[in-house]
Amino acid sequence: MARFTFFGGKGGVGKTTVSAAYALRCADAGHETLVVSTDPAHSISDVFDQPFGDEPEPVTGHEHLAAMEIDPEAEVEAHLMDIRREMEAQVSQVVVNEIDKQIEMAHETPGAYEAALFDRVIRVMREEADAYDRVVFDTAPTGNTLRLLSLPEFLGDWVERLIEKRETSLDLYQKAAIGKEEPRKTAENDPIIHRLRERKEKFEFAGRTLREDADFYLVLNPDELSVAETRRAVERLGEHGLSVTGLVVNKVTPAPDEDEHGRGADYLRARVERERERIAEAEETIPVPVVARIASRTGEVTGPLLDEVAAELGIDVDD
Amino acid sequence: MARFTFFGGKGGVGKTTVSAAYALRCADAGHETLVVSTDPAHSISDVFDQPFGDEPEPVTGHEHLAAMEIDPEAEVEAHLMDIRREMEAQVSQVVVNEIDKQIEMAHETPGAYEAALFDRVIRVMREEADAYDRVVFDTAPTGNTLRLLSLPEFLGDWVERLIEKRETSLDLYQKAAIGKEEPRKTAENDPIIHRLRERKEKFEFAGRTLREDADFYLVLNPDELSVAETRRAVERLGEHGLSVTGLVVNKVTPAPDEDEHGRGADYLRARVERERERIAEAEETIPVPVVARIASRTGEVTGPLLDEVAAELGIDVDD
Repeated sequence: MARFTFFGGKGGVGKTTVSAAYALRCADAGHETLVVSTDPAHSISDVFDQPFGDEPEPVTGHEHLAAMEIDPEAEVEAHLMDIRREMEAQVSQVVVNEIDKQIEMAHETPGAYEAALFDRVIRVMREEADAYDRVVFDTAPTGNTLRLLSLPEFLGDWVERLIEKRETSLDLYQKAAIGKEEPRKTAENDPIIHRLRERKEKFEFAGRTLREDADFYLVLNPDELSVAETRRAVERLGEHGLSVTGLVVNKVTPAPDEDEHGRGADYLRARVERERERIAEAEETIPVPVVARIASRTGEVTGPLLDEVAAELGIDVDD
Repeated sequence: MARFTFFGGKGGVGKTTVSAAYALRCADAGHETLVVSTDPAHSISDVFDQPFGDEPEPVTGHEHLAAMEIDPEAEVEAHLMDIRREMEAQVSQVVVNEIDKQIEMAHETPGAYEAALFDRVIRVMREEADAYDRVVFDTAPTGNTLRLLSLPEFLGDWVERLIEKRETSLDLYQKAAIGKEEPRKTAENDPIIHRLRERKEKFEFAGRTLREDADFYLVLNPDELSVAETRRAVERLGEHGLSVTGLVVNKVTPAPDEDEHGRGADYLRARVERERERIAEAEETIPVPVVARIASRTGEVTGPLLDEVAAELGIDVDD
């Protein structure tokens, strides 16, 4: 059983509910578990009716279970301010103003949001791995962030060549500045090279850990669009060496009782039939097993309802 | 009544169905109507069970109605190849290779997709405005494309300054090359300036037409996420001077018969109640009227089903 478990899928399919239910199963089985939510709309605070923040906190009423909430907006903000500070140290005021405009625009691009979130997820993986047996995320790398995983190979040669060049120029600088008592500048303490090395190492860690110590589940709903998107997500993850462990079909419409008749029962039967076809299509066209079918609920999934969902989830949490 | 009608909303809410139903109403009322679909997953070809392509074609069995399909993937491709060709004319092979890499990456960004699609939508607006009384799109400008509408003001001063500079340098070039019998280069036939002017004019046209001769409807489903997204979309459009005419709530769960009892009826009643709350929330928090509530259907909406939806739509198509 991998230490890290990711539940991916489009907004609204129910990733946070499924992640919470899975984390609950892990905790009930005696594993020290942390569930990390990244969805501001339907957060783990709603599920457990308890406020969570950026640091792990024990979940009241559940042993072995802690939760935390990442606010992606705040992460984007911090991420971009970070870049700004670094830039400022290197360039003139005119350029800083230009950078401000660019940052303003970058703030609105979906890529910035995902990149900042992924960055934070990697940090949680690094920092919390020792304290917990299981860390469960209600998000998985998507197209844009998966590309970051190939950054280490891409950066590898380039960083090495850059270091060589930087060494030469720093050497010349050193000779010109001789006798000025300045601290010796080397590639080792050059801030740009330091930053590049750091990034390279971070994504190396992420790629290795995601490939060797993580399980991926995709949550979908039994409709055409969701099945098609899940098929594409499985392909994308595969292209980056990440294989999906299972599919969780959520929000499955319940069948009426056998003796029910009328407009409502007719509608439900037709709908159940159509959803069955969609699930069959998913099973035929996506090379990943459907590990759970979770019934649609009309109320918020909290408290005892979450235990019900956890029971329906039926993913093995041991071995 | 505006000439252009846009139906926006997140993927899967049913924009194409609603657009087709609305176009059908316009055509039935005697207006020459073109419906333009941009969704490859659920296209207008599926709705009318007739293949449509990149040019308007009459819809079989319906007077005054034509349809066309824009393939956004093909548009991105064409758009980027266009940029590449232009660049090649200006720069060296080394740079072209670098551009190729950038284009490869740009291809995968969500922004490229939306920008190319919006470009094509503007072209359809320009080319088909005279031939039809009504042009209906199953897409509306989103966050990324709305930003393009402020491009003309942004580009305005800059293009003028650039032209001045370009004039000066072309003038110097002219003096140096005197007697070489080359055609006289001026800012008027400079390809870069031409391109900038063209873009400026295009987005000026788009901004003006969208503000003065277009109606916007947002399609949503009666769930929390969809309501929240619609609220944000209304705000975004408002920031760019575009006001939303109405909201169309699609996929509303039908109530069971009054005398139905059992698990199915209980589920449906609870669900109907919850959806009513969501629609009430939309009405209270979004300053745009709900103009239609369309019942959820279990089958594909085609043929006679589309007429039913058109009847439920109840948006006035005349005046």
